[in-house]
Amino acid sequence: MAAEASRTSEARRDAVFGRWVVFSPARSRRPTDLKSHAPANPSPGAGAAAGAPKPSCPFCQGRESECAPEIFRVPAPPDASPWRIRVIENLYPALRRDAEPPAPEEAGEGEATPGECAVVGFGFHDVVIETPRHDVRLWDLDAAGVGDVLLAYARRVRQLMEHPAVKYVQVFKNHGASAGASMAHSHSQMLGTPFVPPSVTTRLNCMKEVFERLGKCSLCEFQSKDILVRETHNFSAIVPFAASYPFEIWIIPRQHSSYFHEIDKDTALDLGSLLRTMLAKLSKQLNDPPFNFMIHSAPFGVSSSCLPYTHWFLQIVPQLSLIGGFEIGSGCYINPVFPEDAAKILWELDC
Amino acid sequence: MAAEASRTSEARRDAVFGRWVVFSPARSRRPTDLKSHAPANPSPGAGAAAGAPKPSCPFCQGRESECAPEIFRVPAPPDASPWRIRVIENLYPALRRDAEPPAPEEAGEGEATPGECAVVGFGFHDVVIETPRHDVRLWDLDAAGVGDVLLAYARRVRQLMEHPAVKYVQVFKNHGASAGASMAHSHSQMLGTPFVPPSVTTRLNCMKEVFERLGKCSLCEFQSKDILVRETHNFSAIVPFAASYPFEIWIIPRQHSSYFHEIDKDTALDLGSLLRTMLAKLSKQLNDPPFNFMIHSAPFGVSSSCLPYTHWFLQIVPQLSLIGGFEIGSGCYINPVFPEDAAKILWELDC
Ligand SMILES: Nc1ncnc2c1ncn2[C@@H]1O[C@H](COP(=O)(O)OP(=O)(O)O[C@H]2O[C@H](CO)[C@@H](O)[C@H](O)[C@H]2O)[C@@H](O)[C@H]1O
Ligand SMILES: Nc1ncnc2c1ncn2[C@@H]1O[C@H](COP(=O)(O)OP(=O)(O)O[C@H]2O[C@H](CO)[C@@H](O)[C@H](O)[C@H]2O)[C@@H](O)[C@H]1O
Repeated sequence: MAAEASRTSEARRDAVFGRWVVFSPARSRRPTDLKSHAPANPSPGAGAAAGAPKPSCPFCQGRESECAPEIFRVPAPPDASPWRIRVIENLYPALRRDAEPPAPEEAGEGEATPGECAVVGFGFHDVVIETPRHDVRLWDLDAAGVGDVLLAYARRVRQLMEHPAVKYVQVFKNHGASAGASMAHSHSQMLGTPFVPPSVTTRLNCMKEVFERLGKCSLCEFQSKDILVRETHNFSAIVPFAASYPFEIWIIPRQHSSYFHEIDKDTALDLGSLLRTMLAKLSKQLNDPPFNFMIHSAPFGVSSSCLPYTHWFLQIVPQLSLIGGFEIGSGCYINPVFPEDAAKILWELDC
Repeated sequence: MAAEASRTSEARRDAVFGRWVVFSPARSRRPTDLKSHAPANPSPGAGAAAGAPKPSCPFCQGRESECAPEIFRVPAPPDASPWRIRVIENLYPALRRDAEPPAPEEAGEGEATPGECAVVGFGFHDVVIETPRHDVRLWDLDAAGVGDVLLAYARRVRQLMEHPAVKYVQVFKNHGASAGASMAHSHSQMLGTPFVPPSVTTRLNCMKEVFERLGKCSLCEFQSKDILVRETHNFSAIVPFAASYPFEIWIIPRQHSSYFHEIDKDTALDLGSLLRTMLAKLSKQLNDPPFNFMIHSAPFGVSSSCLPYTHWFLQIVPQLSLIGGFEIGSGCYINPVFPEDAAKILWELDC
């Protein structure tokens, strides 16, 4: 690792989103006279006896009736709680399953309808409650427990895929107030959209360009410049060469694979184990930081010619600082921590 | 204004960035059990006697020696403070003016070098101190004062444009801790980059597509669907049809114009007056919210065939809520406030 070279600014572009990121360790030394927004991130169970439901939390066991309808649950062994995971409708959905789906041509990727356009807010917005207990975080579960959450995502994505108007499902998790979470109880969400979201289109275009020019999938050959933190039989956890966020991690299938939702039980267990470890490392190193994770998969029904260059992965981004006008305006990020340095720290951490 | 129609979810795509935005008023009713991050946003002068420099603020008059070198200043009349505006180097620059500029082909837009790439962190990172006084906000200045700040931006952009390795200059302002600001004293920044930032490329591609298919510039013909808040001789302030953020405002030249930095004195005065009014409206309506503004202009040296569809504008985004994994993952925003409703409120507000 070229520690010496890491000390001056550098701009890097990644091969998946085509994004430029400016690495600038000097930035982390700038002073502030505004109140720090270092997130107060109390452990979700703080104040409640371990295992007891928090009086007002609808995601806790025993309060199922306060939630929007259940879609399915993963049952627990008979002697334990009645469920381990619940997939439910979001009570305040951004997109509505009862709206009229748009006609196929209305929600194209800009081909049929350039310029401004509007469609009814049809879509699916679901919540995955990862545990019945208010005081348990995702990485407090064992590898099989995390694997089951991943299998629940995949099962629900497969269900949503059946709907002809759903073009993409974005699976994501918000943890901590500064990462946007409004609920403390461990959960994730997914949104099935009637259009292909803009970042997905950009990602596919960028990976296609790399494939056409270099004849390889951007994520099959990442080893050259990205920095490995940990490997399992099926997955690599890396800090990407051009990480937008400090301590950003990507977990990537080692075998080329376009769709997350095709994951099988053994592979989910393997991913569960690696995800658990990486979240524990981030929690330990960064003192339970707020974070988001997102699963990046291929849109439904892409032509088979796209499959050689689409490769799904899971992106974890700790939220350590707020973005500003430069990032909002330019789409370019300033990252004070070089990936080499973040990877070294995460690699060495015992978890 | 179709107030009734605003009540259910709708997805809209804008004609400038090609972004999908989900409008969902129901989302604003969702509960939270996590500490609200409603920004504590004390007026910058809180605690200091009016006009007196804050003891530790290097941007205040009298503390010039604590700043990085000055590039130029706008002098004040002889009987007042020695300066009204200072443009200085950023003491903690993300990009460094003393680094070796990259060779022209290194920082292409992905044409010459697909996939990952890295260049030295060459570039310019400047700060514009908008007033010598710690207790004055940008919109406390008169129209001419704001106009002079805009002219200082334009002058500095023209200087940076002379450097052959600078491809774009992003001008932006952060106000309030939740909008990323680390300094309370009223200021803005600009970054001259050795590459064309990703959002700029996306914007140009999207505007080009509209131009090629519909034969018009996306921003010359915005009146159809965007919602006017206020107009001056040279500018329109609108809430865009597919605003990503609640109460987002765009200020757009009414005459087609590609480059912000070509603005003349009279036009800057006119823009100063409108910008001042819009910031005052946001401050009044939203209780001095944190916000960012960004100037979106054309990259330097684009071919003349691009000029018919590039149209500069100034985007103001109040930061009322945090984004989450859906936005980070998909590039698609959820906005609980319909543009029609935001525009109506801002229109009626007396400022
Ligand atoms: N009784 C109940 N039954 C079912 N569902 C219930 C419920 N009570 C609450 N919910 C839902 O549970 C979800 C909890 O989600 P999160 O805490 O991950 O963030 P949220 O979606 O609020 O917003 C964050 O994530 C989104 C998407 O990234 C961003 O738009 C936003 O700005 C950011 O704050 C909410 O969407 C809420 O609607
Ligand atoms: N004595 C001095 N002389 C000269 N300059 C001085 C100085 N003391 C401080 N500065 C500079 O003044 C600037 C103040 O800028 P802002 O308050 O707008 O936000 P900042 O750039 O810190 O970060 C926000 O904006 C950037 C860009 O959008 C985001 O990357 C980041 O996450 C967000 O917090 C800083 O860049 C700082 O380096």
